[in-house]
Amino acid sequence: VKTVAIVGVGLIGGSFALALRKAGFDGQIIGVSSPPTVERAQSLGVIDAAAPLQDAAARADLIYLAQPIQQILETLGLLGTRARKGTVITDAGSTKTLICERAADAIRHAKFVGGHPMAGKESRGVEEAEADLFRGRPYVLTAREPHLEKWIEAIGARLVILDPVEHDKLVALVSHLPQLLSTALAVVIGDHSAASQVAGPAASDLTRLALSPYEIWRDIFATNGLSIDAAFAAFIAKLESLRLQLRSPEMERVFDKAATSARALRKTS
Amino acid sequence: VKTVAIVGVGLIGGSFALALRKAGFDGQIIGVSSPPTVERAQSLGVIDAAAPLQDAAARADLIYLAQPIQQILETLGLLGTRARKGTVITDAGSTKTLICERAADAIRHAKFVGGHPMAGKESRGVEEAEADLFRGRPYVLTAREPHLEKWIEAIGARLVILDPVEHDKLVALVSHLPQLLSTALAVVIGDHSAASQVAGPAASDLTRLALSPYEIWRDIFATNGLSIDAAFAAFIAKLESLRLQLRSPEMERVFDKAATSARALRKTS
Repeated sequence: VKTVAIVGVGLIGGSFALALRKAGFDGQIIGVSSPPTVERAQSLGVIDAAAPLQDAAARADLIYLAQPIQQILETLGLLGTRARKGTVITDAGSTKTLICERAADAIRHAKFVGGHPMAGKESRGVEEAEADLFRGRPYVLTAREPHLEKWIEAIGARLVILDPVEHDKLVALVSHLPQLLSTALAVVIGDHSAASQVAGPAASDLTRLALSPYEIWRDIFATNGLSIDAAFAAFIAKLESLRLQLRSPEMERVFDKAATSARALRKTS
Repeated sequence: VKTVAIVGVGLIGGSFALALRKAGFDGQIIGVSSPPTVERAQSLGVIDAAAPLQDAAARADLIYLAQPIQQILETLGLLGTRARKGTVITDAGSTKTLICERAADAIRHAKFVGGHPMAGKESRGVEEAEADLFRGRPYVLTAREPHLEKWIEAIGARLVILDPVEHDKLVALVSHLPQLLSTALAVVIGDHSAASQVAGPAASDLTRLALSPYEIWRDIFATNGLSIDAAFAAFIAKLESLRLQLRSPEMERVFDKAATSARALRKTS
């Protein structure tokens, strides 16, 4: 890989550029973003040059799409026949099935491999980019690709290979469902104005995600509806069963099972 | 108040004793607990003396029940006619309706006022007790009582007066429901062994409460079944409506409402 095009130079795209540099990448990094963004990214030393999508695509060996999901879907259409044979295209979108399907339809000569770095921050934008954002965090690829795998390991991420459908099912459970539970809980508590008087750390912990902006989530809901619906169904069924078991001795076993699962999540994440 | 009896000298009872001292209480503090516990509490300087319940009750102007809920219910029966007229009895149990009903039946001469300090820590025991545990935290009383109010304010807590039934409804929403959501989520995620590979901070945040020990919760479920069931019903109805609205523009308004509620919880807690 000699030339990398980062399409969408925000928190994730910018961090990937910085991480590549830190890991010893000595080729050129071209940014594709709005004029004010590429200007900031250049002045921060995140990218070496700026170019329009088609120019950057024609020159790059690796094209990294770090835009919101809907824009990734559009960019894949625009890249179509423009990306060269031998070029690898990957993305950083939070859902994978629709993106991989679109890529299979649209991309002619280049090779597409879906990606999802499980990393982020509360604030966004290229100013927040950091070289160590991916370090120690899972980084999903939807297929094996040696060049990409090499760089993902070099930036310190933990490579996980997952089929796109399986990825979307799992993130529906560990990411999309938690967001919706937090949002629903905040709304239910908000319906009882006196409740905040007695709220403690439990309510704060569980409503932190409810502060997330809707813009990120709109695209996720639009592109992972089936898996999220299945996660809702599994969760509501579990709640209904806890509701019936609430005062039964069986709850002790449920608490044990939950604590085992919660500890396992802490070991790997 | 010249003599205080702390019944159950653990994290909460011990912290109340230390907080009273720090706030200038210069009377005697008698501990009622198992022999090893009162020994540790005395060597830590948390209590001045140890006595059996009946002795301590006969001497105290303020009796502070900081036991698990089921033991508070039993202690109220034992105190019955023993606590003197002029003595105030209060408790620190997490649910209030059943405790206040039992006190109304059992306590003859003394005055009972239910209490619930919204404070705690992950570890328990008198070794964990600290004078500032209640500082800045809500402290619910189920009725006004000038002497008790004076000390609750002196230890830096934020006094909230709530009817027992209203208290139990509100804590079902802000404390018991979050616990059950966290437990249910951990179980649902645990059912998918591959999920921990892609789990990030969202899953960690929402499953932290699932690490709580069942012993505390058994009594809460046993004594607040109706309010918890109502909280389950409201939450499941909200989830079902989000499930239907998932891909509709209405979700933007839901996210706004949730963020407003989550911010309000952070202002007061």
